[in-house]
Parts: sequence; C-alpha cells; structure tokens
Amino acid sequence: MTQETAIKTVTVDLGDRTYPILIRRNLLETTGALIAAQVPGSRVVIITDETVADLHLGTLQTSLRAAAIEYDTLTVPAGEKTKRFEIFERLVDDILALRLERGDAVLALGGGVVGDLSGFVSGVVRRGMKFIQVPTTLLSQVDSSVGGKTGINSRHGKNLIGVFHQPSLVVADTAILDTLSDREFRAGYAEVAKYGLINDAPFFTWLEDNHSAIFAGGEERDEAVAHSCRAKAAVVAADEREAGQRALLNLGHTFGHALEGAVAYDSARLVHGEGVSIGMVMAFEFSARLNLCAPEDAVRVENHLKTVGLPTRISQIPGQLPPLETFMDLIAQDKKVSRGQLTFILARGIGQSFQEKAVDPAPLRDFLEEQLAQ
Amino acid sequence: MTQETAIKTVTVDLGDRTYPILIRRNLLETTGALIAAQVPGSRVVIITDETVADLHLGTLQTSLRAAAIEYDTLTVPAGEKTKRFEIFERLVDDILALRLERGDAVLALGGGVVGDLSGFVSGVVRRGMKFIQVPTTLLSQVDSSVGGKTGINSRHGKNLIGVFHQPSLVVADTAILDTLSDREFRAGYAEVAKYGLINDAPFFTWLEDNHSAIFAGGEERDEAVAHSCRAKAAVVAADEREAGQRALLNLGHTFGHALEGAVAYDSARLVHGEGVSIGMVMAFEFSARLNLCAPEDAVRVENHLKTVGLPTRISQIPGQLPPLETFMDLIAQDKKVSRGQLTFILARGIGQSFQEKAVDPAPLRDFLEEQLAQ
Ligand SMILES: NC(=O)c1ccc[n+]([C@@H]2O[C@H](COP(=O)([O-])OP(=O)(O)OC[C@H]3O[C@@H](n4cnc5c(N)ncnc54)[C@H](O)[C@@H]3O)[C@@H](O)[C@H]2O)c1
Ligand SMILES: NC(=O)c1ccc[n+]([C@@H]2O[C@H](COP(=O)([O-])OP(=O)(O)OC[C@H]3O[C@@H](n4cnc5c(N)ncnc54)[C@H](O)[C@@H]3O)[C@@H](O)[C@H]2O)c1
Ligand SMILES: [Zn+2]
Ligand SMILES: [Zn+2]
Repeated sequence: MTQETAIKTVTVDLGDRTYPILIRRNLLETTGALIAAQVPGSRVVIITDETVADLHLGTLQTSLRAAAIEYDTLTVPAGEKTKRFEIFERLVDDILALRLERGDAVLALGGGVVGDLSGFVSGVVRRGMKFIQVPTTLLSQVDSSVGGKTGINSRHGKNLIGVFHQPSLVVADTAILDTLSDREFRAGYAEVAKYGLINDAPFFTWLEDNHSAIFAGGEERDEAVAHSCRAKAAVVAADEREAGQRALLNLGHTFGHALEGAVAYDSARLVHGEGVSIGMVMAFEFSARLNLCAPEDAVRVENHLKTVGLPTRISQIPGQLPPLETFMDLIAQDKKVSRGQLTFILARGIGQSFQEKAVDPAPLRDFLEEQLAQ
Repeated sequence: MTQETAIKTVTVDLGDRTYPILIRRNLLETTGALIAAQVPGSRVVIITDETVADLHLGTLQTSLRAAAIEYDTLTVPAGEKTKRFEIFERLVDDILALRLERGDAVLALGGGVVGDLSGFVSGVVRRGMKFIQVPTTLLSQVDSSVGGKTGINSRHGKNLIGVFHQPSLVVADTAILDTLSDREFRAGYAEVAKYGLINDAPFFTWLEDNHSAIFAGGEERDEAVAHSCRAKAAVVAADEREAGQRALLNLGHTFGHALEGAVAYDSARLVHGEGVSIGMVMAFEFSARLNLCAPEDAVRVENHLKTVGLPTRISQIPGQLPPLETFMDLIAQDKKVSRGQLTFILARGIGQSFQEKAVDPAPLRDFLEEQLAQ
C-alpha cells in the first residue's frame, strides 16, 4: 500500500526560519501528529474553503483530535474572489476574537487561494503568528505553498497586497489531489512544467515521458511534487525577497496575469495555471520572434502542454476579450514592471530562461496583436 | 546657530536592512537631499495627519522639490482612532492607484500614529515598499520610529494587527518638536525616562539633572533623543522579533495599555506616554511590594516624572474608570501574555528591569485594587 512508502522531505533552507515540506499519499490522516512534532504546543485555527471542507476537513479534524491539538475552524467561499480585503479583515478579526497568541498557528487547508489569504492573515495578526500549510491542489503543492509569498488581490491587480511570511510546516498529501477536477490538476501541472522550462531541461523531458503516471497518482506524482518543491525552494533560499533570480519563477506569468485580468479573474473562463500555460507558450514564441530561441523549442513546449490537455492559445479562452490597448495596460500594471520598464522572462531554449528588463514595447505590441487575432 | 551643529547619527544594525537615524534641529528643510542620498531614485508618497500638515508639510514639500523628488500627499485625521482598518485599507488602495512601485517610498510625516499606520501600509503594498520616517513627536523620535514595529488597533486591543517593517531612513528634526504641545512633549519624555529605568541608571541621573534643557530645546534635547535611539536600537538589533530582551521595552506598558483601554483610547483623558508614566510608577511600586526593589527607588521614579509634569497616579485620569475586573481582563488580553501566563516587566532597582513571566494574579489584584481606590 502507498501508506508504507517513505515520506519525501524537501527542506526549505532559510536560516532560523528553515522548514520542511512533507510529501506522500494519505498524509492528511497524520497531520495532527506531524504538527505535534514540528510545531508543539500550538493551538490551531483552520482556514479552509467550502469545497475542501466538504471533502477533507473531517479527516484533518480527526487527526488533530487524535493528537490532542485544540482547534477552531473558519470557512470561506471557494474561488479567487475570496482573496479580497473584506474577507481578510473578517478573518483577522475572527482570530483575534478567538484570543489566539503569537505561538498559535493558522493552518491553511486548501488551494492557493486559501493559502495566500491565510498566510497574509497569519502574517499580520499580532505581527505574525505561526503558519502551517496543507495544500490541497497540485498548484498549491508545487508552487504557492513554497516561498512565503502571501496576499490578496486589489481592484488594481492581482496579489498587490500582502507580506512575505514563511510557514513552519507544509504537509502535501498527494492522494488529496484525487478529488481535484481534471481541469484544476492540469492547471497545477502547468507550474510543474514551468520548472523544467526555467532551468531544468532533463526534468521537462522526464515530464514528457511520465505525465500519465503523474496524472494517475502513482509514485511519479510524489516525485514530480518533490522535484518541483526542491526547484522552487532552491530559488527561494537563494533569493527570498525576489531581488533577482526568483523572478525566473514568473515565466509565463506576465502574459498569464494579463489574461486573468482580461477575464476579470473569472475562473469559469480561465484559472491561473491555464493563464500560465498560454503565457509560457507566448513567452517561448515571443523569444523565438526575437531570435532568442529556436522556433522548434516553442513548438515542443506547446505540444507537451497540449498533450496533457492544457490550453495554449488565447483563442481557447471562451467569451469576448478586451482590445489590445487594455492588454498593454494590464502588462504595464503588472508588478514585474520596474521603474516604468517592461520586464519579461524570456528563453534561449528549454531550461534556459532569463530575465529581460528592457523589453521593447513595439515588437511586443505587434506580437500581442497577432496572438489576439488568431 | 544650531544649524551648524553636526548631525548626530544612530545606526540601527540589522544586516542588509541596516539604516541610519539622523538627528538635529531643522533637518526637515534638508530631508529631500537626505532622501536623495540615502534612498535614491524613489518616488515618495507622504502620509501625514491634518495637524502636522498645517504646521510642517510645506517645509517638507519644498525640500523634496528642491531635491527634484516626485511626491504625492495623503492626509489622515490626527489621533489614535486613525490607526484602524478602514483607513489602512483606503491608504493601501490610494497608493496602488498612484501606481507606485516597490522601490518607491512611503514617507511618514507625523507622530507614532502616522508612523505605525504608514509603516504597516508600506509593509503590505506589493509585499513591501520602501519606508522613510520623519517623526514629529518626541515619542515617535525616541521610540516608535525605531525598531520596525508597525500596525493598527483592533476592537480586541491596541496594535494587534501589523507587521515588522524596517525603514530605510529616519530623519528626526528636534526643532519640529517646538510646535508640540507641552502635554505631548511630556508624554514622549516618559519613554525617554524609560530607557534609564530599564538598564541605564546613569542616564536616569543625567535626566534628573538636565530635563529643563531637554524641554527647552537645547543641545541636550538632541543628546536625549540620540541616547534613547541608541538604547532602543541596541535592543532591537539584538532581538528584532521580540523573542526575549526586547520585552524590557515594555516596562510600564502592560499597566499603561490597560489604562488606555480603560479610557477607550480617549486621548483627551490619557495619551500613551501618560499611561506609560503611570504604568512605570506602578511597575516600580508593585516590584517594591513584591520585595524586589527598594521603596525609595519607586519614590525616586515618581518624583522625577512628577517634576516634569507627568501624571503618576491613576486618580489623575479625569472621568470615571471601569471596575477592577475590567482591568484584570485588559491585562490578560495584552499581547505580552504568553500561554495564559501573566508577564510583566518588573525591577530590582533603577536601571535593573527584568521580565517576570509568571506573575501571581492574587497580589496583582490586591495591588490594582489599592491603586484604583487611591
Ligand atoms: N503564493 C504564491 O507564491 C503563489 C504562487 C502561485 C499561485 N498563487 C495563487 O494561488 C491561487 C490559485 O491556487 P489554486 O489553483 O490552488 O486555486 P484555489 O485555491 O482556488 O483552488 C482551486 C479550486 O479547487 C478546489 N479544491 C481545492 N482542493 C481541492 C481538492 N483536493 N479536491 C477538490 N477540489 C479542491 C477549491 O475549492 C477551488 O474551487 C491564485 O490566487 C494565485 O495567485 C500563489
Ligand atoms: N511602533 C512602535 O514601536 C511604537 C512604540 C511606541 C508607541 N507607538 C504608537 O505611537 C502612537 C503614539 O504616538 P504619538 O504620541 O506620537 O501620537 P500621535 O501621532 O497621535 O501624535 C500626537 C498628537 O500630536 C500632533 N503632532 C504631531 N507632531 C506634532 C508637532 N510637531 N507639532 C504639533 N503637533 C504635533 C498629532 O497631530 C497628534 O494630535 C500610539 O499609537 C502608539 O501605539 C508605537
Ligand atoms: Zn503561478
Ligand atoms: Zn510606549
């Protein structure tokens, strides 16, 4: 049985804030014991969304009771719109009303939405409580739960308000992903593929060979999650506050965020990972257009993402899209803009991404115009 | 003239976040040049309160223009009630609307209220913008602008929501304090005296000898501000996140916060420093009661605070106060409570404060009852 497989551990190395990410199927059932070992003596407030609560909250609560950990539960609606000021304020107030102390922990049970929101909440209550992540989507296991970025959206853009706040423990139960919709699983897979595209061509090749087993839930899934966490952890350890190297993780994201903005974060039309998938193909095609990388690399990127069922073209987004100028504005408003210059992650090939801090707006506009017309 | 006096510099030593506090009369006029030297290339958004804006905003703006620094100004009402969620949210939104970037700076021109609020805002916009403090009260020059604590109040208590966010530069113009009311100046002086009482008996003696010159605005004022900043900076550098040593800075504050809570933060009745003054006398008297320090030390503390015109007794607070049980609750709700235990800063004498983590509630209750009855 999978239970007998060893727990994979990825250590995120951040000096006195170093913490482990534990990865295996069916870890949720032992989360209480893991917390008792790693964050002893803390009361816990679980933050989760309604969908995840229905599926997995009971298992978590049973495991906390088994470890004699006192807990309360706060539930928020599922979906990106939950990452907003009003809900943030309400959670902060609820936690203060529960009289939790600094040494107590906020536990995020959910995807990136719950994780980002809960992380921000735990980062500001009493100027920082302990934080535990139990990510329940592939995206949150391989990406949002690693690195300490937390936050909410603003009407001015995505993730514009937040803090850096590292968790004390991340428990990634890969069996929990079995209840995830195919669409959400694929969206997370876009971020897995991203690690290959950034600086790890052999990993991208491994994904081309093993994607079916990853989707099916075999040992390869655990391996893909662990490899992705290690990749992100390495970047984060080298550059916690995103001064340089860490920017590479934004491959596909400047275009992707603009697309998410263009559909007003309507997840019926586009979820984050889908935007990233289309955005990565755009980044490679734009790199090819600028003669930075071979056109065949862009084709290979698109083929693999298509194979797993991800959208790779703007035209696959259902419904009306705004005009070119709106896209240019959305890109300029993205926080990767520094001192008015357009910064993009471009590539010289698969596994050879780099940051370009002064992208010329003229070819970008032409490129976008074509992509929108397709 | 005082302008020719050298600028005193206190360096707050925090690794790659090390920053200087510059102290002298009439520094406001050169703040633009100081920013250009220390935080080059940043746009600035000034946050100030209406009272300070009337008195000093023009001078600051002139100095920014002289240094060719682009700026915007956001004004909030004066007073402790401004440290609340609604205003925090509005400022965050206003700054995002101005499209400021991470490398741009929030400049707090005002007392601790403006500083705490602006620091929190700058700590969460784009997960942390640069932050510059131009403290305009004695309290903010010697205390709140040193150490990186930022935040707002909640209906559950004071300063319960916030982050640690260090400034890049602090400009303390000691002449700006000339427009401060006597009452506010005295309130800040309570924190100056606190540094002597914590661990620096010679400084307390120096204050007993030099308080008149400090109030009058001589060179001794600059010296008192610099000495206080150095004292706090030393503690902060040793213990940025308040794990241990830093707790000593809370001398007088557990009682003081309870008193502020008891008057519902009505500054007409009690301002922070007045609460601290009464609280420090209470801490020394309670220490004497527990046979930890000599009763004469408590008398000496009270005498000096009285000499400069500070209140030292609960009975000096105008209006009705709540009953004993409310005080006990307010003390238990203070964030210095750890795992349900009552933590107080007590003293073995002047300059010999220490943290007591398990104060017995019974003698505390008796002591408080007497104090309330006086
Ligand atoms: N902090 C970071 O570094 C970082 C990095 C990448 C993305 N993000 C953020 O993450 C968010 C996206 O995260 P997400 O894709 O996990 O979205 P999500 O949290 O909205 O989850 C997607 C959907 O799946 C449901 N769900 C979650 N777990 C489930 C499970 N096990 N079974 C069935 N349904 C489940 C949720 O209820 C939700 O409806 C975005 O807001 C993005 O900005 C943050
Ligand atoms: N962050 C920290 O480490 C820390 C430490 C101590 C206190 N604090 C906080 O600081 C706040 C108190 O600060 P404060 O005492 O400066 O209060 P404040 O900011 O409210 O200022 C007091 C009053 O003086 C006015 N004022 C300010 N400068 C003036 C000037 N130069 N001339 C005339 N009037 C002027 C203000 O408009 C206000 O009405 C509290 O909220 C407290 O919690 C924070
Ligand atoms: Zn992403
Ligand atoms: Zn104080």
